Amino acid sequence: MEIKRPYLLFLGDAADPLAAKVGQGIVDWRPGNVVGQYRMENCNADMGIEDLSIAESVAKGAKTLVIGVANRGGIISDEWVKVLMEALDNGMDIAAGLHNKLNDIPELKKKAEEKGLNLYDVRHPTQTPPIADGKKREGKRLLAVGTDCSCGKMYTTLAIDKEMRERGMKSTFRATGQTGILITGSGISIDAVVADFLSGAVEELTPVNDADHWDVIEGQGSVYHPSFSGVTAGLIHGSQADALVLCHEPTRTHMRGLPHYALPTIEDTMETVLRFAVRTNPNVKFVGLSINTHKLSEEEATSYLKELEEKFGLPCVDPVRTGTAKIVDAL
Amino acid sequence: MEIKRPYLLFLGDAADPLAAKVGQGIVDWRPGNVVGQYRMENCNADMGIEDLSIAESVAKGAKTLVIGVANRGGIISDEWVKVLMEALDNGMDIAAGLHNKLNDIPELKKKAEEKGLNLYDVRHPTQTPPIADGKKREGKRLLAVGTDCSCGKMYTTLAIDKEMRERGMKSTFRATGQTGILITGSGISIDAVVADFLSGAVEELTPVNDADHWDVIEGQGSVYHPSFSGVTAGLIHGSQADALVLCHEPTRTHMRGLPHYALPTIEDTMETVLRFAVRTNPNVKFVGLSINTHKLSEEEATSYLKELEEKFGLPCVDPVRTGTAKIVDAL
Repeated sequence: MEIKRPYLLFLGDAADPLAAKVGQGIVDWRPGNVVGQYRMENCNADMGIEDLSIAESVAKGAKTLVIGVANRGGIISDEWVKVLMEALDNGMDIAAGLHNKLNDIPELKKKAEEKGLNLYDVRHPTQTPPIADGKKREGKRLLAVGTDCSCGKMYTTLAIDKEMRERGMKSTFRATGQTGILITGSGISIDAVVADFLSGAVEELTPVNDADHWDVIEGQGSVYHPSFSGVTAGLIHGSQADALVLCHEPTRTHMRGLPHYALPTIEDTMETVLRFAVRTNPNVKFVGLSINTHKLSEEEATSYLKELEEKFGLPCVDPVRTGTAKIVDAL
Repeated sequence: MEIKRPYLLFLGDAADPLAAKVGQGIVDWRPGNVVGQYRMENCNADMGIEDLSIAESVAKGAKTLVIGVANRGGIISDEWVKVLMEALDNGMDIAAGLHNKLNDIPELKKKAEEKGLNLYDVRHPTQTPPIADGKKREGKRLLAVGTDCSCGKMYTTLAIDKEMRERGMKSTFRATGQTGILITGSGISIDAVVADFLSGAVEELTPVNDADHWDVIEGQGSVYHPSFSGVTAGLIHGSQADALVLCHEPTRTHMRGLPHYALPTIEDTMETVLRFAVRTNPNVKFVGLSINTHKLSEEEATSYLKELEEKFGLPCVDPVRTGTAKIVDAL
């Protein structure tokens, strides 16, 4: 799956800026992928880019309308459908990462089929990946793992990929979740893959490449998250990572969604990940730690990162505060 | 899903006895679930039970025709469909664990809908399990894990469950693969579940129970199998096992399907499984080893089991040669 670019970013009737965080991600990380934004009445988000009608965006070359906003109440409203139909009528594909599927709306599906256009529900993979074969593949791979879900793995890998490309290194960010897929236009929503094909999907996502090319792979879940560890295990074995980056949010007291589970320690998580990871790459190493210090003061953050660097003997960064240069230096 | 019993066992045109190993499993482990067998011309398998026509089996109370044989060439032939239609016409449900779905054959699907009957494709779950919450559940759970796939986990857990029930202990075998599901009439084909719901499916399969009740859970894959470790990780976390049994086939030189991967050691596998398992049950323990000594002589087998018992300080059995009493004693 390769979503055609550039996009028109659909912000709909976003309740607030947070509801449009997918749109924000696209504008932050791949501004060149976007020609403008489409905002309905009552839209409380603004990406600071040009407001365009469907027709204006097509005139500027837009190929796909991308839904960059969460839908209110979990339904795709009639008002949205009206705009989406107009996009199809103007020859655009549509891509969304919503729980509800575009393909479940009969009139959209019918129109897209008639006009030979694509409706991408990136949260719902439609192809069956192969079973993993565990064979060594040329090229290098970096994977983000974490002490928990939602602790900065996507941000960290997008930032490392950006740093690498700015240095002229060969690098591709490999998205494993719906936001990352919409940002870059390709990837696979790994947690929606049938269990048997988990590692195979990751092998397919990160195929043979030049020996000096890095796949920078967005992680998911945590080996220690009781709900999602299977996903993480598949990512670790399928990626055959050469380099691992440990992501951590130091103020969190329990695992996301599970108040009855304390956060595991960084050391314990790293040790279990490594026991696992050596199975498909005996040379795998942790190359750095990426800490989300958002809730710490500048002073606290600086001293915490320094403390971890001394403890683990590895570069420790906060991709927002410090950038990821130190980790890329160490590769 | 609860497949109605008793069954008529459909052996079709089995190429040889091995092709009917699902049927053999049902007859070996749950003979009371079967009223007889249905064999077509050219059937080279025989379970040693009564040959019945569809109508005769219904007269004896059969509720479901269960396909106990692998289909030749991966297709469901017209000859088979003829018999399956006759079963539906006689008011029977049909259950199969094939890769191909009964539900993909239009005439079967139409007839089943018309008559309000069920077509169970047990390899293909139709319901979405919940996301795991990792909460402690009353009741005890035993899970089989292995150094590899297909090294005796189903046989071991069926044997332990049988031993427990013969002693009057409260026990339920919990099937996680198609053969186990057809043997017992319920369970979930865990490797066909969407990755996000892996642990949740296992939690649902092994719900709250009496404090002295054992769920004896069929394992799948291996934490060290590069293709299927995600499935195993989900099973370990979702089961919250109190007791683990390590299954191993000592003559195997490489992992199933992967000649480029040596078999991991028993010690290494146990250590990694435990690191994982303590996350959802801090009191988890290995309670025994179950060795498939099929390829060893009686003398070799005896001395190998003795050697492992001394090395690990745990009961070591071969469920076929020695039975599993020693492991149940140790619980």
